[in-house]
Amino acid sequence: MTGPRVVIAGAGFGGLTCARALKHSPVDVLLVDRNNYHLFTPLLYQVASALLDPGEIARPVRELIRPLSNIDFRQAEVTGVDMDLRLLATDRGTIPYDYLVLATGAQSDYFGNPSLAARTFGLKDLNDGLAVRNRILSQFEAAQWTTDASRRRALLTFAVIGGGPTGVEMAGALSELIHLVLRKDYPNLDLSEVRVLLLEAAPHVLGTFDAPLREAARRSLVKKGVEVTLGAMVESVTENSIHLASGQEIAAGTVIWTAGVRASELGAALGVPLVRQKRVRVDATLQVPGHPVVFVVGDLAGASAGDALLPMLIPVAMQEGRHVAATIREMVRTGGASEFRYKDPGIMATIGRNSAVAEFGVVRLSGFLGWMMWLAVHLVNVISFRSRVLVLVNWAWDYVFYNRPIRLIVRAGGDRSVAARTAP
Amino acid sequence: MTGPRVVIAGAGFGGLTCARALKHSPVDVLLVDRNNYHLFTPLLYQVASALLDPGEIARPVRELIRPLSNIDFRQAEVTGVDMDLRLLATDRGTIPYDYLVLATGAQSDYFGNPSLAARTFGLKDLNDGLAVRNRILSQFEAAQWTTDASRRRALLTFAVIGGGPTGVEMAGALSELIHLVLRKDYPNLDLSEVRVLLLEAAPHVLGTFDAPLREAARRSLVKKGVEVTLGAMVESVTENSIHLASGQEIAAGTVIWTAGVRASELGAALGVPLVRQKRVRVDATLQVPGHPVVFVVGDLAGASAGDALLPMLIPVAMQEGRHVAATIREMVRTGGASEFRYKDPGIMATIGRNSAVAEFGVVRLSGFLGWMMWLAVHLVNVISFRSRVLVLVNWAWDYVFYNRPIRLIVRAGGDRSVAARTAP
Repeated sequence: MTGPRVVIAGAGFGGLTCARALKHSPVDVLLVDRNNYHLFTPLLYQVASALLDPGEIARPVRELIRPLSNIDFRQAEVTGVDMDLRLLATDRGTIPYDYLVLATGAQSDYFGNPSLAARTFGLKDLNDGLAVRNRILSQFEAAQWTTDASRRRALLTFAVIGGGPTGVEMAGALSELIHLVLRKDYPNLDLSEVRVLLLEAAPHVLGTFDAPLREAARRSLVKKGVEVTLGAMVESVTENSIHLASGQEIAAGTVIWTAGVRASELGAALGVPLVRQKRVRVDATLQVPGHPVVFVVGDLAGASAGDALLPMLIPVAMQEGRHVAATIREMVRTGGASEFRYKDPGIMATIGRNSAVAEFGVVRLSGFLGWMMWLAVHLVNVISFRSRVLVLVNWAWDYVFYNRPIRLIVRAGGDRSVAARTAP
Repeated sequence: MTGPRVVIAGAGFGGLTCARALKHSPVDVLLVDRNNYHLFTPLLYQVASALLDPGEIARPVRELIRPLSNIDFRQAEVTGVDMDLRLLATDRGTIPYDYLVLATGAQSDYFGNPSLAARTFGLKDLNDGLAVRNRILSQFEAAQWTTDASRRRALLTFAVIGGGPTGVEMAGALSELIHLVLRKDYPNLDLSEVRVLLLEAAPHVLGTFDAPLREAARRSLVKKGVEVTLGAMVESVTENSIHLASGQEIAAGTVIWTAGVRASELGAALGVPLVRQKRVRVDATLQVPGHPVVFVVGDLAGASAGDALLPMLIPVAMQEGRHVAATIREMVRTGGASEFRYKDPGIMATIGRNSAVAEFGVVRLSGFLGWMMWLAVHLVNVISFRSRVLVLVNWAWDYVFYNRPIRLIVRAGGDRSVAARTAP
């Protein structure tokens, strides 16, 4: 084919959906991502809590695009865009484009606080998930060697900062891992020495949900053994403690940060106006103002619905990706761009293995019913059938035996040609 | 229980078998390993060739010993032994023992050649397997960016040094990965630019097998697209080439070393006489001479059968582990140690997904029949039932769809408190 070239930066939900929606269009699509895989991010906390292996929540991009004859892939880190020359810059070379879709997503935001950046674990990519898993299991092993009770208590305190869906899911899964599985692995463990904390600055968890669901989620967390502290503003984190703005100090050897997210570095590198969370200001058509062949979708896009920015959610990214694909198809046929309108399918968050909250239009579900809904939606969305089979086998096993099979501390596995990653 | 304390260093096949065989004995067993998992090493090459995920060939030690009430585990790196004070030294503290079983296994041996140590990948532990997988996939991605044909050819040349079972299995699996899977992932790939080499210094592969099986294995490798070079002595390896003693130079961006193995560092740290491959000289009873409560089993043990050292094989390690457990049981009852006799169950090696060679007593199998035998033996031996289900699902899938599902390049995942591993 020799159609116009559409370059898509990012193979997450926004970029991949856009690429797939262009499969029957008279264009050549090139998908670029720093990783060679698409990550099913909603289950990342399950890698972090040792329930799933990376291969179960990530799929090679090349496998996903294999049936699509007009789509190719290159692995590279996207570093910038020359909008005049229509070139995408990467760490491996430049790529010319006729249409460009930027979908490089989001990263942790530490609000300029260096102790948070240096001392906490993120939960944004596969490496984060594996690092958290290794840390949790290593802390339990290290605690076996400690005779000092207060030191052991710090080793066995795990704090999750941020009571949004990611924080709630992580804290719930971690508490279950400890109470259902690690308790059996460490028969001498004194469970009263183990703490899972969830710290949230607002007066409630899951602020985007209805008040009754927020309260249901909090109760469910407490029932699972999570100590939920609301109104807790974290000021700094040291190697073994958390300092709150109230002056309180909490001994904790492991701190997971889910309280701040901002757009990927690419946004600021573009030299165009940004909105909140360093997201790129876009027209209602998702075009960068003044650059009609450059589109932004997903977490990187600062698209609005009325007065508010659209949230950083997978359904937003997917709908935006589909809309941009349709727009490009129109433009190739010399048509124009149309406005994007988000159709809200509802929101969900899960708390461990049998409880969730879900909000679909006027429907409100919590507890086990919410969890059944959560399970159904996620199983349908896990991208390949094979993954679905494996995830089901694992979950069924876990459900029947209360077991977390993947409790492996795997230290390296990096490409030796790549400088080993240091703490962010 | 307050029985004598048996400390076992190493949770591989030797150490774990010994621990399990002591389950009904009036002793307290403490198993120590630097990793928190037991690794099913015969399938490590399948992690390296992107067919299996780590969770499928490794099991947490604590899960494996959970049903055994007199066995506990500590994660630590064993650094030495004070045989007078009866203390095992580790990086986390010392452990007193009444009986000690050393089973820390083997590592790659580069025969003092620094270019081999610095420039080749090993295939001994889980990190090695993941590093090889990442490297292979990264080379294919990098090749997509290269317009220089000779550079691309070097990027796409993968050399395995050593024609023993590990090298043969790795080369066969790698060639299949390329011809059956990556060929589809890279539709523009020129397969004539991709090479898989197997270099062996001896005049044949699989030197420990019967001559007809050696030849069957070589033919099977060639049929699968592996270039087998016999009589090839490797002198040095640079970033992009291999230099042979003959003066020949081979452009190769990835070199995997399986040609040398020696006992783990612990052997030399003991200060007792060693035999070939730095293995510890032991009595016929597997005791360290002059130290009747210290036993050595598995690859670390230099046990003999007649004039020859026993090979570094799993059945040897398991039989030795069982024998030492029986001896300790006898000694606790004030009995004495008895001689170890190895019962050879036969040897096997597989070449890709449908061919293997197997030698059991007078039975010689090759090709598909050999492979069926290999599959049966390994499935029975994969330690847990759950693993067996998952491995079967993966294999069935792979067999039907000629697919390698786990083609993920995952860079890090290390515990951030642990300094990232540099190249060995």
